Amino acid sequence: MKVVAIYSGGLDSTILLYSLISESVELKALSFNYGQRHVRELESARQISELLKIEHRIADIRSLQPLLAGSSLTSSEVAVPIGHYAEESMKATVVPNRNMIMLSIAAGWAISMKADAVVYAAHSGDHTVYPDCRPEFADAIDAAIQLADWHKVRLLRPFVSLTKAQLVERGAKLKVPFEKTWSCYAGGSVHCGICGTCVERREAFHLSGVPDPTPYSADAPSVETMVRNNWRLIP
Amino acid sequence: MKVVAIYSGGLDSTILLYSLISESVELKALSFNYGQRHVRELESARQISELLKIEHRIADIRSLQPLLAGSSLTSSEVAVPIGHYAEESMKATVVPNRNMIMLSIAAGWAISMKADAVVYAAHSGDHTVYPDCRPEFADAIDAAIQLADWHKVRLLRPFVSLTKAQLVERGAKLKVPFEKTWSCYAGGSVHCGICGTCVERREAFHLSGVPDPTPYSADAPSVETMVRNNWRLIP
Repeated sequence: MKVVAIYSGGLDSTILLYSLISESVELKALSFNYGQRHVRELESARQISELLKIEHRIADIRSLQPLLAGSSLTSSEVAVPIGHYAEESMKATVVPNRNMIMLSIAAGWAISMKADAVVYAAHSGDHTVYPDCRPEFADAIDAAIQLADWHKVRLLRPFVSLTKAQLVERGAKLKVPFEKTWSCYAGGSVHCGICGTCVERREAFHLSGVPDPTPYSADAPSVETMVRNNWRLIP
Repeated sequence: MKVVAIYSGGLDSTILLYSLISESVELKALSFNYGQRHVRELESARQISELLKIEHRIADIRSLQPLLAGSSLTSSEVAVPIGHYAEESMKATVVPNRNMIMLSIAAGWAISMKADAVVYAAHSGDHTVYPDCRPEFADAIDAAIQLADWHKVRLLRPFVSLTKAQLVERGAKLKVPFEKTWSCYAGGSVHCGICGTCVERREAFHLSGVPDPTPYSADAPSVETMVRNNWRLIP
């Protein structure tokens, strides 16, 4: 099987790459530069792809920023919501139709190289506050990309029934270099430890029992404090 | 109703703009620069949008060219097929997943402005040699974009049961300035009159009985010759 894997350089999609390689899947990785503040993740994606000796391409869609404006993931004027995911604060990080745009481009690349599938690391913890993370959305995209060309490409989500903690367990078995992955949305030089994705990352390591090798900002509260506060920054 | 209309600057989508305006639909137009050889169409789109006093944006997706390589619509190394549509020659003009990418971006813009729909000028003559022109593909995209956000956007194709000749008839009633629209794929300064889209354009005017005001290249055979040859250049 030959696939295009959507690859952010983060924890989940890095575990996906290692998992596919362990299953001898022929693999190319695709990242997106959409003007995200956490562009540091693209450097992680590049480094890890090089380590794995797989072809890695970055689709540059920054020119779409003016059309897709209004999200804190791309705008430096809007604060990144911090702490554990609360529906309202999460809504601020939605880029309109980002997933469909990325999946369409990945499908275009897959069609052009006659690959069998586009694969991405959706897992059971993906928040329904992102409407385009819902399974019924993925099913509709799967149907569309199968019809988009005479050469059929499928959309696969092998991790969809696993939790993020289960992914970390799997990653540990596959010897994923967790410390090289990047999750933080805040745009600093180390993981802030308190934005939504940092908190999810820390929680996944904590729940899996796998040691978290990530250096977090010195300002960040300890895992023990986070657990005591039920993963909320303001108890 | 507020909509985003996908607008190439060509015949069909210009008739769509005039048709929507005649129905008092609130309208913004979106064109795509994907590195097409016939970039002249974008200038037509700009001029006609200005004439109609509607907001017009061009999404620049040229950065995706390396990923979507291999089509004669973007590569200057591959010859444009000429003459009436023959399945094999048409296949050379397919840009992998272009329609899905464009519809996804249009849906993103529609979501960001809380519009009701994305509208495009698919008509009954759209060739099934383009798999992503098939109605079942459009239905799948409609399902996906409705699920892509809490704010529901629909995909509308008001011309889907009309022929291109019927569109020209409608355009004539709406006083569409046909001479300002651009169809030719060949990349010259006037319509070549012999590429696939030029032939379709000439045939639509001929069948509708509406005079064709388009200046074609002096080299192009006359409509009478084209009709006699059953719209094939090489009889």
